[in-house]
Amino acid sequence: MNIKVIEDGGITSPLGFQAGAARASIKKPERYDLAVVVSQVPAVAAGVFTTNKFQAAPVQVSRRNIIHEKVIGFVVNSGSANACTGLPGLTDAEEMITKAAEAVGCYAEEMLIASTGVIGVPLPMGRILKGINDACANLSIKNGNIAAQAIMTTDTFAKEGAVQFDLEGKTITLGAMAKGSGMIHPDMATLLGFVTTDIAITKKCLREALLEANRDSFNMVTVDRDTSTNDSLFVLANGQAGNQLISEIESVGYKSFRDALSYLCTEMAKMIARDGEGATKLIEVQVLEANTNEDARKAARSIAASNLVKAAIFGEDANWGRIICALGYSGAEFNPDLVDVCIGDLKVAMNGQGLSFDEEVAKDILRNKTIVIKVVLKQGQAKSKAWGCDLTYEYVKINGEYRT
Amino acid sequence: MNIKVIEDGGITSPLGFQAGAARASIKKPERYDLAVVVSQVPAVAAGVFTTNKFQAAPVQVSRRNIIHEKVIGFVVNSGSANACTGLPGLTDAEEMITKAAEAVGCYAEEMLIASTGVIGVPLPMGRILKGINDACANLSIKNGNIAAQAIMTTDTFAKEGAVQFDLEGKTITLGAMAKGSGMIHPDMATLLGFVTTDIAITKKCLREALLEANRDSFNMVTVDRDTSTNDSLFVLANGQAGNQLISEIESVGYKSFRDALSYLCTEMAKMIARDGEGATKLIEVQVLEANTNEDARKAARSIAASNLVKAAIFGEDANWGRIICALGYSGAEFNPDLVDVCIGDLKVAMNGQGLSFDEEVAKDILRNKTIVIKVVLKQGQAKSKAWGCDLTYEYVKINGEYRT
Repeated sequence: MNIKVIEDGGITSPLGFQAGAARASIKKPERYDLAVVVSQVPAVAAGVFTTNKFQAAPVQVSRRNIIHEKVIGFVVNSGSANACTGLPGLTDAEEMITKAAEAVGCYAEEMLIASTGVIGVPLPMGRILKGINDACANLSIKNGNIAAQAIMTTDTFAKEGAVQFDLEGKTITLGAMAKGSGMIHPDMATLLGFVTTDIAITKKCLREALLEANRDSFNMVTVDRDTSTNDSLFVLANGQAGNQLISEIESVGYKSFRDALSYLCTEMAKMIARDGEGATKLIEVQVLEANTNEDARKAARSIAASNLVKAAIFGEDANWGRIICALGYSGAEFNPDLVDVCIGDLKVAMNGQGLSFDEEVAKDILRNKTIVIKVVLKQGQAKSKAWGCDLTYEYVKINGEYRT
Repeated sequence: MNIKVIEDGGITSPLGFQAGAARASIKKPERYDLAVVVSQVPAVAAGVFTTNKFQAAPVQVSRRNIIHEKVIGFVVNSGSANACTGLPGLTDAEEMITKAAEAVGCYAEEMLIASTGVIGVPLPMGRILKGINDACANLSIKNGNIAAQAIMTTDTFAKEGAVQFDLEGKTITLGAMAKGSGMIHPDMATLLGFVTTDIAITKKCLREALLEANRDSFNMVTVDRDTSTNDSLFVLANGQAGNQLISEIESVGYKSFRDALSYLCTEMAKMIARDGEGATKLIEVQVLEANTNEDARKAARSIAASNLVKAAIFGEDANWGRIICALGYSGAEFNPDLVDVCIGDLKVAMNGQGLSFDEEVAKDILRNKTIVIKVVLKQGQAKSKAWGCDLTYEYVKINGEYRT
């Protein structure tokens, strides 16, 4: 299948979606911090949410509303997570979707919601409700980018993208925006991620495709092994592309859509890893020839998540012992005496033992902005990739001063 | 029971133990980097070892030898871990215990061994064998401290201690030394730790006491969630105190010994956490009123291990949302709506929601060198403690430059 990347594409690239954003001064003045995205016609939706036992109010509300047959859109704010805020927090989240629903003319139950920012601080509801009004007043297909900006916290750049593919003569478009920079660790949708698409698909197939795409994309990103109380990933499909409804996961249409969704989610996931708090380098860990996909995933995530691997990459030190070590405690099954390790194209360990290599060649590889670590287990055919970033002084600084 | 701390005590405080150390120039010249500890009479021994799938050569050798009925002592080097070194590494480890056994006059099978330092680098065997000779030549009850120095890597101070208690008119002494500063994470003996004691006890009871003591001490320390390939904890008991042999875990003698061993291991564990790589503060996490001990342990370790909690403590920021978040993904069972959180004596969250508190009071608490985080789950009677340290610029620096 041909997946075409749409340059400067985003959440409003698919047919029938609009976005709006506002400066609501939730935490900092003069920056976009509130976004609304809506479909012009009702859309089917699917979502995955954090497994943290503390579930932020917007997570609770969205979990409930996503069960409905159709949704219209969602509202998102940055600056305050509305987590650990008790019943008042729940009431605030309800009020936010009610306000957004009023503004766009739908039922509150047809809106989803997500929040990100500091935990345990009540929302400034006056400013937020005004912000929702403002954002709904500037809904447009041109405002995808400011919506993507509005959901940033410590992110240094807005994360958005869009792809297209052809299906039975129709063009299917998928758009996405995401935020995530810290508190990022796999095993659920660890971030805020939003995907829109104009494909016609059943709710059941959409959900299945989201689970498949999420597993090998957002779930394979780790910045710091900290799993947020607010993680949410939604996908809305409004059917405006005019394709024949996809209702079987064995169909060609389903598989094409799933591949496009996986591609887009993976691109967004890599953007998140590259923009990990304080990061200077993107780390891609490839685990090859594992016995099972689950072994490969465990191994890749463990290496990408290791503080010691991450600090070594920051220091541009080809300290492959850290990689071996993180592999060894990953829980994956393999024979330690068979493992090969490459940093970029340079093989540094073979059959579980170090090779002598040219440190200057290693340094040259480690000076790049993207570092690929390849681990070959020689057990079977399964493989996986995980993404992380280096651990830097700046990470410590950002998180030592987060609330201030 | 009265446990008496012996001032300036260490590995040679119990009757019948001697230590020696040498400067073998393994990685850096002019520092002690090789230690030998021996009992003058055969001792029963017990050990716990890393669960990392890559098991360093000395771990493989010690696992095998600790099965023997009696051991005489152990040899330890810093500077090189002898991990991922294949068959040559195993041969080197065997040669080290053979040389030590020759020097002290016992069988190689009666010696244990541990190594710590860089992974994957062959040992400089010439200098090491000479070092073993030198260390054995200065065996003395006075050399516990230089032995403790010899096992340091990035540690900033030597970790040693000793305690005594009375049992049926006899004085029982336990001594210990440990190293550990990075690559420290629970779920096994995550460090090198060595305990000597003059108590008379069966091998079976000694092993049981070690497992019990280890579980709530060394296993509750976390610096960076990285589990080493070399972690080992040995205890040797030589019976020189002259007490009646302890052979039942229901006996008063067993319980007293286990309590003293737990106390000593906990003190060593706290030293390790306080000296975590780059650390400026010791963090003690107390989880109270959990349903089960395992829930309490999971919760305490998860909070102590969180990069975000650790960075917030470094920044002296009372960001309790980080604590709540790490508790939420710990896997422990509890009701999020009942949780109270205190930082020092300051209650910052109650029933899962934030309280307004005086930030200046919080700052004053966070300026201390030891920070106690208390989490009350209100589920049952179980409790646990875990220890960690803050995450600092210095951690990143140390591990960006570890091999250089």
